[in-house]
Amino acid sequence: MDKIALGIDLGGTKLDAGIMNSSGNLNARMRCQTEAQKGPNSVINKIKFIIESLIKQQNIQKRDIAGIGIGIPGFIDSYNGKIAALTNLPGWENIPLSDIIKSAFNLPVKIDNDANVAAYGEYLYGSGSGTNNFFYMTVSTGIGGGIIVNGKAYHGANHGAGEIGHIIIDMNGEKCSCGNYGCFEAMASGTAMAKFAEKAMDMGHKSIINEIAGNRAIKAEHVFEAAVKGDSLAVELVNKEALYLGIGICNTIAMYNPERIAIGGGISNQWDVLYPKIMETVKNRALKHNLKACDIVKAELGSNSGIIGAAALILH
Amino acid sequence: MDKIALGIDLGGTKLDAGIMNSSGNLNARMRCQTEAQKGPNSVINKIKFIIESLIKQQNIQKRDIAGIGIGIPGFIDSYNGKIAALTNLPGWENIPLSDIIKSAFNLPVKIDNDANVAAYGEYLYGSGSGTNNFFYMTVSTGIGGGIIVNGKAYHGANHGAGEIGHIIIDMNGEKCSCGNYGCFEAMASGTAMAKFAEKAMDMGHKSIINEIAGNRAIKAEHVFEAAVKGDSLAVELVNKEALYLGIGICNTIAMYNPERIAIGGGISNQWDVLYPKIMETVKNRALKHNLKACDIVKAELGSNSGIIGAAALILH
Repeated sequence: MDKIALGIDLGGTKLDAGIMNSSGNLNARMRCQTEAQKGPNSVINKIKFIIESLIKQQNIQKRDIAGIGIGIPGFIDSYNGKIAALTNLPGWENIPLSDIIKSAFNLPVKIDNDANVAAYGEYLYGSGSGTNNFFYMTVSTGIGGGIIVNGKAYHGANHGAGEIGHIIIDMNGEKCSCGNYGCFEAMASGTAMAKFAEKAMDMGHKSIINEIAGNRAIKAEHVFEAAVKGDSLAVELVNKEALYLGIGICNTIAMYNPERIAIGGGISNQWDVLYPKIMETVKNRALKHNLKACDIVKAELGSNSGIIGAAALILH
Repeated sequence: MDKIALGIDLGGTKLDAGIMNSSGNLNARMRCQTEAQKGPNSVINKIKFIIESLIKQQNIQKRDIAGIGIGIPGFIDSYNGKIAALTNLPGWENIPLSDIIKSAFNLPVKIDNDANVAAYGEYLYGSGSGTNNFFYMTVSTGIGGGIIVNGKAYHGANHGAGEIGHIIIDMNGEKCSCGNYGCFEAMASGTAMAKFAEKAMDMGHKSIINEIAGNRAIKAEHVFEAAVKGDSLAVELVNKEALYLGIGICNTIAMYNPERIAIGGGISNQWDVLYPKIMETVKNRALKHNLKACDIVKAELGSNSGIIGAAALILH
């Protein structure tokens, strides 16, 4: 029988899981809410439950499962496989998630950061295939990155490589959730875009963004929707978003000299609007020698990249 | 007999060469002026002449030489080994320097960018030894970088990886020689520091920097000298330099998550003054998880790093 692996994509709000074969095909997929506020024990039980449910639903024998891969939204302590911190999940520190799942199922378990995992999935089966040096950037509420260097995932000294969200692109810029100022994430994430919109409207800018959001918190998607309708503040904010994304891409080109950069995450749903504007900045400001060798594309696996990449940790 | 190799460090103003054995010991060293303004043919003849002179002076048999390594100040076209462009040397494009030297001496020749070569030298025999993930940053008239990833030099798609001088740290900052604005090099190189000094004095700031420079063009070293004497503009400029260096180091920590970052180049002569100020910024602004795993040190090989790294291209 073809080897299969389980891929788990642990997110701050959703927990996704799937079964993948060695050709990269997802045979099954399940989703539940993470309910992170209930703490680590509750989340770990949900992970166990979703794994059991998948195995039962697909009627798989344990001996056919090569292992379980897990992508987590935070830092891993590479020395002992523990989780050092999860960005949006309270109470997660020094939790040996790998050991817990390993002993619960008696199967090999591998863990990596969610952006690294998605990068690996895109590299093997999506927008990065065929390259040797590939950078995957996910732009949604935050910004993360994952790197393939000479055909292998690059993790750095303690699994923190590719933290593109926390490079400083404007040293006098906005405050970031990490405590720093002017980080790429603080300027170009969906959260940043929504904050810029709120701030401008607080200062008296007229806009239909508020109307579109209604009684919900303003999100980047509301800004994009307003821009399509010709709202001048929204158009300005979309241009600003593309400029900041362009700067972050320029920095990636200078530092890593990748063959390809793929943009994923929620913001990539606006690719057709953003791409031409991003490329204006990139063509004007990227290091010319390095740009010659680099394509900038939209990621291909969408919300499956995390599951696919997690399962690939086991199968590759 | 122990294997030996020749290392050539081609600079914009000086041409250095040496003979190294497989333990990293330099047995001989020669220097001449590059006189780049005389064009590629003149410089190539000088390279040939310095190689011949070293071989004669040391009375070496050609059969004992494993090859010749060359570090160049510019971009290499990795596909055909030609030089794509040399930053400060006019008329260098598509020059097959590797082939020319190979056929002149009938020896293996390897070429790489000067910062990559210096990084490799420092990694093997200096400030990077013992690490797996190492970043070398050279700060003088320009800023360059070289990377060791999982124990190997990382070049990227077309030999442009590690171009830390051209990451944007202040998107509204000073114009850079590359045409962009706010590049690390435009803010933190020795050239940038001298420009900031000139600009401030043009605007009426009183300072002894002019006096120290005398009838020479102002250089970073004049600013440091004035700062030691308590000149308030110079002190401010030194603080600014340390801040910018700190930001560039923070970005390197976020992106590459290296075990160690070493700073070389002319500015590193001011290490004792700069280091505590740099570390203030780094401690405040670097990504905490990644910083835990990273040392920031002064490079160790000084002006020999280029020769040693170039010879190491052959011996390792």
